[in-house]
Amino acid sequence: MSFLKKTLLASIAPIVLSGMLMSQSTPIEASDKHHGHDKRYAKFTKDNDLLQPRDYREWVFVGTSITPNDMNDDNPAFPEFHNVYIDPASWGHWKVSGEFREGAVIVKELTSVGTKEAPSGNGYFQGEFNGIAAMVKDSKRFDDKPGSWAFFGFESYEARQGILQDDASCSGCHKASAADDMVFTQFYPVLRAGKSSE
Amino acid sequence: MSFLKKTLLASIAPIVLSGMLMSQSTPIEASDKHHGHDKRYAKFTKDNDLLQPRDYREWVFVGTSITPNDMNDDNPAFPEFHNVYIDPASWGHWKVSGEFREGAVIVKELTSVGTKEAPSGNGYFQGEFNGIAAMVKDSKRFDDKPGSWAFFGFESYEARQGILQDDASCSGCHKASAADDMVFTQFYPVLRAGKSSE
Repeated sequence: MSFLKKTLLASIAPIVLSGMLMSQSTPIEASDKHHGHDKRYAKFTKDNDLLQPRDYREWVFVGTSITPNDMNDDNPAFPEFHNVYIDPASWGHWKVSGEFREGAVIVKELTSVGTKEAPSGNGYFQGEFNGIAAMVKDSKRFDDKPGSWAFFGFESYEARQGILQDDASCSGCHKASAADDMVFTQFYPVLRAGKSSE
Repeated sequence: MSFLKKTLLASIAPIVLSGMLMSQSTPIEASDKHHGHDKRYAKFTKDNDLLQPRDYREWVFVGTSITPNDMNDDNPAFPEFHNVYIDPASWGHWKVSGEFREGAVIVKELTSVGTKEAPSGNGYFQGEFNGIAAMVKDSKRFDDKPGSWAFFGFESYEARQGILQDDASCSGCHKASAADDMVFTQFYPVLRAGKSSE
């Protein structure tokens, strides 16, 4: 947990945030816009492992699924809530094109179920963070993979590197069942509504 | 749906986004930072109803709870997923102070359950948007309310105004059970982890 906390609290976060606010009253130059849309959120080691993305909790949230322990014989593939984010530049590109851009990064962060009862009713309520995973679209680096998407697993929050997964681990299900270019947009209403072509 | 889509796709959204990206490579002046932290996301009618917040899907996501129909006799208080966001300026303030600033806006957007089975397991997966609600902290306008938080309900996405709720409707439960200044931070790991004082 400490690495992530340090990451989120590092100096870049307030800068990003303040800039975000500033922008709402500042006209954007075409050159800045172009620069923004080129921004790369994925950085790799020489072995094509993924460095842990920074400040993804300030990216654009696209949806949450839950596969609770108690509905999966205490052994779900991903325990238990899945909070899913897309990097801001890819969100901007998605909104105008309806496509995932080159360099798109999608992060899935997992949390436990904290409780099943609350004043708002019976259900599932988020507990503690317990894992992260990511997928990156990169046609130069991963041109042999379906849709040029590579999948990465992080052993812990302290792990600086996400390990490139075998094709069988992730892309099989994503290729077979995801509605849109390997992404499960059928579960992400924010992506569906954000697509300007719809 | 159409109003919200129009809202999200209005010209402000790309400007905000591009600025957000630009900011990551642009030093922020102290004056801009100050300006950003003063930004007000809540706007009211003369009757103290809340104008529907704009572009909240690009704010900071703090967590999702779910109170599904099938766990609440088909009549949950909030059907069914609750995606919760805080405005970016209040997130920035929270990170450094651990407090909800004057003017803080928290939006809860609801979605149906789309399916209970997916390749990742059994559980609950988001379907379509079906409601929004919001709370705003404003000590001048709502000094008679617990913590100066007022609660608003929107009849639909087309409703431009969120109607100020009776104290009994919302603030009773929030006051009795929310962990931190009327906010259920016990269900929002992003808020807990983002608090720099922890």
